[in-house]
Amino acid sequence: MEPLFIIKIGGNVIDSPAELAGFLQAFALLRGKKILVHGGGKLATTLAEKTGVPQQLVDGRRITDAETLKIVTMVYAGLINKTIVTQLQAAGCPALGLTGADGNAIRAHRRQHPQHDFGFVGDIETVNTELLERFLQDGLALVMAPLTHDGEGQLLNTNADTIAQSLAAALAAQYAVRLIYSFEKKGVLLDTSNDSSVITLLTPGYYADLKAEGRIFAGMLPKLDNAFAAVGQGVKEVLIGPAAELQAMTEGKAGTRITHE
Amino acid sequence: MEPLFIIKIGGNVIDSPAELAGFLQAFALLRGKKILVHGGGKLATTLAEKTGVPQQLVDGRRITDAETLKIVTMVYAGLINKTIVTQLQAAGCPALGLTGADGNAIRAHRRQHPQHDFGFVGDIETVNTELLERFLQDGLALVMAPLTHDGEGQLLNTNADTIAQSLAAALAAQYAVRLIYSFEKKGVLLDTSNDSSVITLLTPGYYADLKAEGRIFAGMLPKLDNAFAAVGQGVKEVLIGPAAELQAMTEGKAGTRITHE
Repeated sequence: MEPLFIIKIGGNVIDSPAELAGFLQAFALLRGKKILVHGGGKLATTLAEKTGVPQQLVDGRRITDAETLKIVTMVYAGLINKTIVTQLQAAGCPALGLTGADGNAIRAHRRQHPQHDFGFVGDIETVNTELLERFLQDGLALVMAPLTHDGEGQLLNTNADTIAQSLAAALAAQYAVRLIYSFEKKGVLLDTSNDSSVITLLTPGYYADLKAEGRIFAGMLPKLDNAFAAVGQGVKEVLIGPAAELQAMTEGKAGTRITHE
Repeated sequence: MEPLFIIKIGGNVIDSPAELAGFLQAFALLRGKKILVHGGGKLATTLAEKTGVPQQLVDGRRITDAETLKIVTMVYAGLINKTIVTQLQAAGCPALGLTGADGNAIRAHRRQHPQHDFGFVGDIETVNTELLERFLQDGLALVMAPLTHDGEGQLLNTNADTIAQSLAAALAAQYAVRLIYSFEKKGVLLDTSNDSSVITLLTPGYYADLKAEGRIFAGMLPKLDNAFAAVGQGVKEVLIGPAAELQAMTEGKAGTRITHE
């Protein structure tokens, strides 16, 4: 099967113009088909503060009320997405910016939660693989903002890690997908205070052992659960490592590699 | 040749959620290939005020400094573009939102002006007709925000009327293009105080006569000059009329029709 990279970058990269520019140069040089999923960073919080939109958090998660949805739509689909697309074009990488609403790329429903109303937050239902494959075949790198829609006229704020995993799983039938979660650390660390304690290879069995021993940093659990869900859904491998070492990660020389076996 | 509608809507439609919803319903029902170009409306000015970005005008035109460019990118490419795309999807019309940076759809250069520096404002150089044709053939209605790029990493604020005209002219070799400028009036009026004085058909000769007699409202001149430039470049016809009567306009029952002869 033809290879496909799906790479998620987080807020720490987006918040630093120099880091972002460096990452995009490396992304542009990656050969073959590729999708970039970006998060939001601090820009949305800053804009909310400036415009006097109060931000509510429940269990550390932002509540997306109607005004906050407008803010994240402006920042994610507007400023961040188009800044990335424009820079990729300048780096010689034909790029197309998307939200889940564009071409019905990702349809979701508003999250139902027994205790909390998270507002306009989407849980993904379907990925329009046919459309994405056509765009990829046209030679376009896809740049996905973390927004989906419900098919009834409502945009929904959606976690970028989850979008990356859903795209990877949905496209695994057509491509040998390598899903890369880039972040500020060197990889999944055995000792969070020691950057040289990167776990090179993480299998389901080893992960279960480490979890049982309480040796996985709690903040990593959702990302790792996503990663193992992806390899369980046919994704060839998941890589977790530093955005600044994208090239090395794709060559197996940096980050943590997560596989099914 | 296969027909193609290119329809520009202005700020007055965008600023009214009810009017916009009505227009999008009509747009979704239009059969065949279609492109919607949207302007900005008052939302950008409101956001600039809220965030304390001073707006400078020269000869009634906004100066796009770096902070203002961020604002229009957020509002045009983010909030307005994705609101439109999401509503079109809900109306059963597969839609793809674009800026000129996406897929290098429209490349421009920063405006050089002997007296004034308009800032990050683009004058269009090239339209990527091959890309747009592929998207149209995929059955997607294209929703274009009024932003272009220079190919060197810079987004540029670009007049929506001019974008519509440039797209129409560039695609006229492949399609029988009907370019529609929708606005708040019933059409081009002989007497601006009388809504029933719509000029049904405007040819170059008649336009020259009316201009010589000073009978064209000054505010209409740029739009009409754009319109005649378009028909001079092979566009089949230009229609100018009310957004609320889109269907009637396409049937020749409303607005002003502008043709080459």
